[in-house]
Amino acid sequence: MTQKFDLGPLKAILDGRRVSAGESVLQLHSHDESYHAPHLPDVVVWPHTTEEASRLVSWARQNKVPVVAWGAGTSLEGNPIPVRGGMVVDCTEMNRILAVRAEDFQVDVQAGVVYKDLNKQLARDGLFFPPDPGAAATVGGMIGNNASGIRSVRYGATKDYVMRLAVVLPDGSVIHVGNRARKSSSGYNLPALFTGAEGTLGLVTEATLKLVGLPATFMAVRAAFATPLQATTTVYTIMRAGLSPAAMEFLDANVMRVLNADRGLALDEHPTLLMEFSGYSRRGLAEEMAFVEEICREQGALTIDRGIGAEEKARLWEFRHQTYESIKRQHIGLSPLIMDVAVPLSRYSDMVEFCREEIRDLTGYLFGHAGDGNIHVHVMDEPQNPQRWARVEEATSRIVRQALAFEGTCTGEHGVGIGKIRFLEAEHGESLALMKKLKTLLDPDNLFNPGKIFL
Amino acid sequence: MTQKFDLGPLKAILDGRRVSAGESVLQLHSHDESYHAPHLPDVVVWPHTTEEASRLVSWARQNKVPVVAWGAGTSLEGNPIPVRGGMVVDCTEMNRILAVRAEDFQVDVQAGVVYKDLNKQLARDGLFFPPDPGAAATVGGMIGNNASGIRSVRYGATKDYVMRLAVVLPDGSVIHVGNRARKSSSGYNLPALFTGAEGTLGLVTEATLKLVGLPATFMAVRAAFATPLQATTTVYTIMRAGLSPAAMEFLDANVMRVLNADRGLALDEHPTLLMEFSGYSRRGLAEEMAFVEEICREQGALTIDRGIGAEEKARLWEFRHQTYESIKRQHIGLSPLIMDVAVPLSRYSDMVEFCREEIRDLTGYLFGHAGDGNIHVHVMDEPQNPQRWARVEEATSRIVRQALAFEGTCTGEHGVGIGKIRFLEAEHGESLALMKKLKTLLDPDNLFNPGKIFL
Repeated sequence: MTQKFDLGPLKAILDGRRVSAGESVLQLHSHDESYHAPHLPDVVVWPHTTEEASRLVSWARQNKVPVVAWGAGTSLEGNPIPVRGGMVVDCTEMNRILAVRAEDFQVDVQAGVVYKDLNKQLARDGLFFPPDPGAAATVGGMIGNNASGIRSVRYGATKDYVMRLAVVLPDGSVIHVGNRARKSSSGYNLPALFTGAEGTLGLVTEATLKLVGLPATFMAVRAAFATPLQATTTVYTIMRAGLSPAAMEFLDANVMRVLNADRGLALDEHPTLLMEFSGYSRRGLAEEMAFVEEICREQGALTIDRGIGAEEKARLWEFRHQTYESIKRQHIGLSPLIMDVAVPLSRYSDMVEFCREEIRDLTGYLFGHAGDGNIHVHVMDEPQNPQRWARVEEATSRIVRQALAFEGTCTGEHGVGIGKIRFLEAEHGESLALMKKLKTLLDPDNLFNPGKIFL
Repeated sequence: MTQKFDLGPLKAILDGRRVSAGESVLQLHSHDESYHAPHLPDVVVWPHTTEEASRLVSWARQNKVPVVAWGAGTSLEGNPIPVRGGMVVDCTEMNRILAVRAEDFQVDVQAGVVYKDLNKQLARDGLFFPPDPGAAATVGGMIGNNASGIRSVRYGATKDYVMRLAVVLPDGSVIHVGNRARKSSSGYNLPALFTGAEGTLGLVTEATLKLVGLPATFMAVRAAFATPLQATTTVYTIMRAGLSPAAMEFLDANVMRVLNADRGLALDEHPTLLMEFSGYSRRGLAEEMAFVEEICREQGALTIDRGIGAEEKARLWEFRHQTYESIKRQHIGLSPLIMDVAVPLSRYSDMVEFCREEIRDLTGYLFGHAGDGNIHVHVMDEPQNPQRWARVEEATSRIVRQALAFEGTCTGEHGVGIGKIRFLEAEHGESLALMKKLKTLLDPDNLFNPGKIFL
């Protein structure tokens, strides 16, 4: 492969090193964890500072080279695939925790910090950064996708924790948005503009994140039901009762079966709700547990397991964190397509039914963050078989359109990336034009993660 | 007063009525609750629908007439004062609750609904809209200012509850932003762009708000301390302990004294913390209460009063809601200047000390939402006495600059309005230029609430 451009100026910016156009490096930065077709970048760079990143972007702008931010490559919609080549800015060497400000409930990090590592360190101060997408994502990737995960029913998504950002704009300049106060009504909410923009408006290099005190103790309940409807009715009955669940997961019978098969477990193979609660008082949690159990029984729960304390929570939740791996391992040779939609809570059971119907001839699994109306459809199939894959994509399309008909969204947490672009017109209507205007205002040459969010 | 323009076209849009240029109507729409100089609009209109609002805005655009949205007029920084005249769009007749979707934890409202009325109705379904700015604000005004109040330490600000908006853009077109899912990563976060924009980017006519289940029960603690530092240290000790306070208010000794004088109370006249907790289990709350009491004692609390249940909470909190009125009534003839800044928690006690020093020669009161680092400085003085008022404004200026030096914000919840414009350059630096670009993109003729946020 011949170089499209001279790497000299990039090496000059990065100490003569931290620049690569080697085949294996380009390969590693050509795909995420989705089924989307890989595409090689022309070069990969590893800045260490905002200032270096700014100089790289200025070079890219002068040379009209696309700029794609790279975190851990764990996204599921092709979000960081450099579909038009160019320069991938790998943020994983910008991975310093700059300052833990425990007394302020905040932390300053570089964008490449992995949130699991961050939370390990924060635990020493009794604090945590709540969004938990599961994969080994970087904070920068989470900001790009507005990632969330199992705890958003209680704690919200990444956007709810971004206090300040350092952003390299497409013109190479650096701006700092936000402040260290826990709330502000000072001017436009710029941190919210860059969070969830999937690197199309600028390159986030540093962030100040709001933190939460670790709960003193936990309680968990797992309940299996004859029908998905009973499970999902239980979700909003609990939320209406003045309880504040910290997580509320739905798993269909297929997921329970594959877990039993893969792990040798003996879980009830029915639609299952898995719930977490937290608080200060074990006695208080015991009362809540009895009440949750009562609600589950009223909704017709077939089996219930529950417990108080961190160990019990870990026991009851263990299999949830293995779901992704178990499905993969039970279908060697097949590839996953993971759809992510979210709907209003009252439509959750209808949405689950609709998805079951759509994937009845496919190898498919349904699970999701029920407390948020978020559902994941996990289909294992053969992307290289056009006929079969067309069937999978058709199901995706119908599922997304149904979520939109329910006034939901085409993606609850995975972002638009490549896979959801075709649905944005239907979801946003006239406001898509405003999004495009914002894009053009900040990135007139369309160099920042081109081919994402917009065509 | 002669009309600048023919009211005929406006009357044609609004059924021949709901348009006024009468002196008393213009007067009523010339000032908010701040000390800022009033300014008369040229005309006031009362649309009932988004479609009417759109036609009004189209007319205004063609005739280059400023458009200023009006809610309840309860803001504190001159936010809706029509400083360049033009058309005030009074939203108070767009005050319908369009749909309570209890099972989805959301409500559709027109912008003119008063949040207290809304919460009265929602309580029937065991739900509430948490932001609580105190005054009889409309939802539209709260969205404009990103209002918050006493419960934001637990529940966040208005921005955290805006799911969907109908917005009339300055070009007269209507867009709908957001969706009904509890979370989304689909494209740019447009609801966040309009929330807190103080009507400078568009006119919000309808909103879908996220709701929360009313807590089953409450617990409250009031503690007085010898020094503000002890009180504020207590704030973060409690937040670090894995407790989740629903409100955490600080009141200085002066506030306690004025309350005693005005209401004939016998409250401890020392710096005071007022806290609210909520939960499902009374027994759990009793344990939390004992723990909170222990922390207060460790921090040197002089007196503690506390109780469990809604009635006890009401008893302990009653005086807080009377603070504003009591201060006013004890200083007949003087006008209030209420400053609102927010700083990181670790700087809260320094900020309180700084404010005390700055207002030592003034009639001033300090209180605020301590759990958010938000402080209000309430000075009673004579705006008509230039010399005295210059002294007040000087203190304001130094207090804001100190808040910015602490990496806080010039306004935690009151918005920029007129009073904070002069601080935005210092607070936002280079990112203020991006805010201005966004403003110009959406409102190239600078017709939407001109003279606010930007000069």
